[in-house]
Amino acid sequence: MDQKLLQTLADRLVEKNLTVVTAESLTGGGVAAALTSLAGSSAYFLGAVVAYSNQLKVELLGVPMEILTSHGAVSEQCARAMADGARRKLGSQVAVATTGIAGPTGATPTKPVGLVWLAVATENGVTAVKKKFDGDREMVTQASTKAALALLLTAI
Amino acid sequence: MDQKLLQTLADRLVEKNLTVVTAESLTGGGVAAALTSLAGSSAYFLGAVVAYSNQLKVELLGVPMEILTSHGAVSEQCARAMADGARRKLGSQVAVATTGIAGPTGATPTKPVGLVWLAVATENGVTAVKKKFDGDREMVTQASTKAALALLLTAI
Repeated sequence: MDQKLLQTLADRLVEKNLTVVTAESLTGGGVAAALTSLAGSSAYFLGAVVAYSNQLKVELLGVPMEILTSHGAVSEQCARAMADGARRKLGSQVAVATTGIAGPTGATPTKPVGLVWLAVATENGVTAVKKKFDGDREMVTQASTKAALALLLTAI
Repeated sequence: MDQKLLQTLADRLVEKNLTVVTAESLTGGGVAAALTSLAGSSAYFLGAVVAYSNQLKVELLGVPMEILTSHGAVSEQCARAMADGARRKLGSQVAVATTGIAGPTGATPTKPVGLVWLAVATENGVTAVKKKFDGDREMVTQASTKAALALLLTAI
């Protein structure tokens, strides 16, 4: 993990007195694990929901089932709903969400391995970004984890 | 991460047609990230709750506030309640939970850095184990992640 990015993020969260949570599908808890790798992270990190199944996306994060059936779990709409839902349901000022196709399975004609949607929710609203990473499962999840942290930093 | 342990665990979960979730404090999502590092993990891994704050331990996992005030978050009682709560609330057949003092801060006279409680919940009940790991924050969380996976394997 990028220690400089993590430390910059931690300093910013402390400086602005912000709390953060994560809502993760693709990254499987990796963003939360990265955030908590720093000593003192309990000052700003409240927790995370890893929602691998669609059912948990709905139940724990409040993602509307209609989004999952119409757009699928790997979509801008789902990433936005995950971030917004995590922020509200976990009671945090900021939330970051990840969803994507880590591979090697799960790709579709329109959603290749490495397609990733990230979103960050703050009191100012939700921002989503689309990424396409190359490489194997580990490379895609690692790149996504780093990109989620970078997106979080841009939003606060 | 111990790839052989992970693969053995994955094979066992598939063979027994079991679903698994994690409830993590100390490990910050690291157990979930390890489980989802394997391709095909969506067949058995449903999701996770990382509950760093006491409030999220209560709200998302149903840990009784009385346990937190009487025994603290790093206790056998809390680990058991986290595993049992995750199993029920996330609707999984098996759940594993971690809580402990990763350090360098957070130690008390009776709870040193490296003290860890792990618990696993199945349809047969909840089993908890106490560990004491040496080393820095990264070493404690890594050892705890591996121990949680090993405990999970013994229970299924």
